[in-house]
Order: sequence, then structure tokens, then C-alpha cells
Amino acid sequence: MTEPELAERLMAGDTRALARAIRMVEDRDPAIAGLLRRVRERAGRARVIGVTGPPGSGKSTLCDQVIHRWRGKELQVGVIAVDPTSPFTGGAILGDRVRMVRHTLDPGVFIRSMAARGHLGGLAAAARESIRLLDASGRDRVLLETVGVGQSELEVMETADTTIVVTTPSSGDAVQIIKAGILEIADIFVVNKADLPGASKVVRDLKELVRHGKLRAGWSPPVLTTVAESGEGVDEVVAAIDRHGETIAASGELERRRIARLRAEVEAIVVERAAERARNALHEGTMSRELEGDLSRVDPYALAERILNGHSKEPPQR
Amino acid sequence: MTEPELAERLMAGDTRALARAIRMVEDRDPAIAGLLRRVRERAGRARVIGVTGPPGSGKSTLCDQVIHRWRGKELQVGVIAVDPTSPFTGGAILGDRVRMVRHTLDPGVFIRSMAARGHLGGLAAAARESIRLLDASGRDRVLLETVGVGQSELEVMETADTTIVVTTPSSGDAVQIIKAGILEIADIFVVNKADLPGASKVVRDLKELVRHGKLRAGWSPPVLTTVAESGEGVDEVVAAIDRHGETIAASGELERRRIARLRAEVEAIVVERAAERARNALHEGTMSRELEGDLSRVDPYALAERILNGHSKEPPQR
Repeated sequence: MTEPELAERLMAGDTRALARAIRMVEDRDPAIAGLLRRVRERAGRARVIGVTGPPGSGKSTLCDQVIHRWRGKELQVGVIAVDPTSPFTGGAILGDRVRMVRHTLDPGVFIRSMAARGHLGGLAAAARESIRLLDASGRDRVLLETVGVGQSELEVMETADTTIVVTTPSSGDAVQIIKAGILEIADIFVVNKADLPGASKVVRDLKELVRHGKLRAGWSPPVLTTVAESGEGVDEVVAAIDRHGETIAASGELERRRIARLRAEVEAIVVERAAERARNALHEGTMSRELEGDLSRVDPYALAERILNGHSKEPPQR
Repeated sequence: MTEPELAERLMAGDTRALARAIRMVEDRDPAIAGLLRRVRERAGRARVIGVTGPPGSGKSTLCDQVIHRWRGKELQVGVIAVDPTSPFTGGAILGDRVRMVRHTLDPGVFIRSMAARGHLGGLAAAARESIRLLDASGRDRVLLETVGVGQSELEVMETADTTIVVTTPSSGDAVQIIKAGILEIADIFVVNKADLPGASKVVRDLKELVRHGKLRAGWSPPVLTTVAESGEGVDEVVAAIDRHGETIAASGELERRRIARLRAEVEAIVVERAAERARNALHEGTMSRELEGDLSRVDPYALAERILNGHSKEPPQR
């Protein structure tokens, strides 16, 4: 399939074309730049909803329920589930994903897992580009699920229009959330497993937190309770997502976020290409020979300057 | 204090100069490049030992015991403890650090905690530069402790000469270790809390793993057992660290690792500066104005190319 064909099919909503394009993104295929350029004008309509929270908070079950409701409204859905980077806590979360499997036979739901093991800025870039592809392929809602265990996942969450932070009465995370500055990215708090003891205290703590926090664009993050297993409270979450979307669209905040996202996108591409340039320069030619002999004589800052300015093949200028 | 003075004092082993220089590294102070250049020739003698493992595996207690033995041999020690990036699991690990406090009054042990919340590649760069400063200040051993919960921590571990992976019978991590590719970075396995039931099974599993793994530079990672609380087995860990150091020095592997580290260092500087260049370009002048109006018309790849090639102030060339 040629690139224009792939772009056409993707924009027509062809699932296999979409899958192939996302694979190109994950493989950091250089041809993706051209493809994204072709489909760009078709993007910009999807609402991007990020869902984050600690392992075991029931994020996937909640996502499953939200997807179920969107499908009931005939909305086309895309899901990007970012697997944790942790080499030590990898196991449990993947099992969790199984709960979304009931949607895998529904062509109206496109689910892709993405491993957070890429290089510098790679995960956020890959997520952003995948969102754009899902958007261009006509998905009305894109869910971005992360476990929020690292800087790169936080960067991913910054690409969402609406961010939901899920916690539970048992995880005692309310306090951690304050510390970690999660408050700044949360548009909606969900206390899941609200049938467990201690739920009302967590709700109270979070409301207190929100009250003392800074309002962004006239939106005060609601604190909702759910029992995702049974579906209790999920309608309210879906309604809050819509309400938040309307509020930020009206206030100009949505536009502001999209510009910020575009900036981050450009920055990530610059970083990725600069890293590539560095790797190429350091593994071949004159510069790799400079990394022999007495290493204490090598000045990494001077080498870096030369690479960045495209002078990696010339001797140092000073 | 002028930069040459700071460099002089640091190389003379002055702890306050060292602390100030490391703070500059953490603040990403531009003056650090010059300082590192001045002290570079004095560096290259310290052995860098990385210690990683899941939270609760007793890494800090083990580190404390190893430091104690090194101090018994009059070795000067530097410690960089990387705090986890996780906004959700941050609490427990910090408490753990308290175990190293007994060394804080010993001028022969310099301990610095470093938060893993920096930007792209920032943590690995900061750790590498801090190691170089500790090295230049005459520390014989530098311990690098991470909880290994993310890509950035793995990058940090790659800066070590010898990497110790700590696990316990109860954490059931032996299997996770295989999956996560930790095997490739482990030079020494330590099964801590070896007095707990199941220790011999973990040892057996790890030995099996090592047997099927690829030998690096003629070194087969030993699987040692410790009870760090009581000090049992720690002498063997210290001996294994020395043995590994001698082996890789003799085989040329140490030199190979140091070149790889230098490459990574240059790459990280390139990335950091490229990101800075992108941020500057996108927040001022012509380019920031291009991020207004119809965003679907903006081609982030074209913008990125222009920034990378230093043409951010000119219109696109094609």
C-alpha cells in the first residue's frame, strides 16, 4: 500500500490501515511524518480523555464501563493503554487489561497497548501521534490509560483534553496525590471501589484539596464516586467528561491546551531527531575515533555542541 | 567562589565545594559545563557500583552494610540515591533511606538524594555528572541506588561499572526479572532476606537464568545470599564487587563501558540542548506566532526540522 493509499483508507475509517499506521508510529518509522501530514487536516475533532491512577485502582474496569456507555451513544472509540515502564511491577497491570477484552470484537472500539520502554520522549511522541491517527480515522473519543508511574506517563497525560485521576479508599493515595502534584493535571477525581470503608473520608480529603487548589479556566474538579465493577456512578463520570469538554471549549482553555500540545509535539520531534543525529555522529566517522584513547581528554560538552550545530565531521573550532 | 576556585576545592576533596557543584548539576546550571571540564582530568579512578531492586528488597540496608565495610578499608565513598519518579509509590522508599543516616556524620561518606522528576534525559545526565564530580573529588567508590521503576532509572544504572540486582524470596521478582531484561544489566545478583522461606528456590531460579543467559566479557553473574539486617553475606558481596571490577578491567570491558557511557553522556547533552533550543524557538518570535489560528495547518515535523537546523527565525525553505 502506498502512503497516499494508506492515508486515504485510514481517513475512511479502515481499521487495518489504522493498525498499520500505529505500528509505524511505534516502530518510529521515518515515513510516519509524511503520513501524519496527509491526515492532519482530518484530525482535531476527537475528544482525548486521559485516565490515570495507581495499579489496582480499577482504572481498566472504569474505562470499560465508560466505553460501554459511549458505544451506547454510537460513538467511535479509540483506546491507548500505556503499559508501565517498571521492570518490577509489570505483571499485575497487564492482567487488568483483560477486562477491556469484551470490546475487542466491536469494530467501534480500537484498542492498542503501548509499552513505555521507548527512548527519550519517545512514549509521549508515540502516544500523541497515535491519538492524531485515531482522531483522523474518525474516532470520536480517545481514551488514554496510564498507571502514572513515571515522568514519561505524566507527559503522556498532558496530551489529554480531560484528565481523570482514579483513586480508591484502600490505596491511601489521597495524600500522595497532593505531594506529587497530580492535582495540577486532574480535571475529574474518581474515588473507585466506593463501597469499601473509608470512601467518604477520601472524598472529603479530595474535596478539601480541590477547594484549596487553583481553579483552572473556571473549572473546579468534581470528586465523583464509582463502583466500576457494578457500573454504579459511571453515568456521572461520563456526564462530567462532557461537561468539562464543553466548559474548556467555551473558555478557550481547549485551544490553549491544544497549542501547548503542539509545542510539546514539536519539542519531542526535535529531541528525537537530535538524539538520532548524536547516535549517528558518535558511532561513525571522525567523532567515534575521538572516543578512543585517553577518555579524560574528551569534553562531552564540546562534542555535543558540534553535533548540534551539524559540525560533527569537522575538527573542533576552538 | 569563582569557578576555578570551586574546581580547585572540589578536587582537594572539600565537601562543601562538592555539595555546591552537585547542586549546580541538579539545577541544570549552565556553568556546570565549564566546571566539569576543569575537573575532568582528575576523574576516572572511582569505581561506580549500581544497586537496584524493588521497593522493600532491603537495598538501602545492604548499601549501608557495604559502605560500612568500605569505610573499614579507609575508602572514600559517595552515594547517589535516586528517588522514585512514581507519584503513587513515593512514600515508603524514602523512609528506607533513613537506614543510611548513620553515615551522615562521617565525612568519608557523601550522600545525595536525587529526585527523578527532571526532564528528558535529565536524570541520567545529572547522575552521570554527579558521579564525575564525586570521582574528581577523590571518592574511591560511588554507590548509585535506584528503585528501578522506570526507563530513566534503567538509564541511570547503565552508568555503573558494576550493577547489583537485589531481590528477596517474598517479592516473587525472579520471574519479573527475566521479563524485564534486567538480566542484561545485572553483574551480581543478591537474594536478600535469605533467612525467609523460599530463598533457596529464588537462588536456584536465578542460577538457572544466569546459566541460560549470555556471558558478558567472560563474567558469569554470581547469585549471592544476604541477610542485610544482620550483615550476613555482605563480605561476599563486597568481594564479588572487587572481583567483577578486576575482571572487567582486565578484559577491556571496563574501557568499553566507559566509552559507551561517554557516548550516552554526549547524547544526553545534545538532547537537553536541542530541547532547550526548541522551547526557546516555540515561545518567542515568528515561530510562536505560527502556533496560532488554524492548528490543523501546522506541520510539527517541518517546524522541528527548522528548529534543529537553526532556521527557526526564517520561513520554511520548501
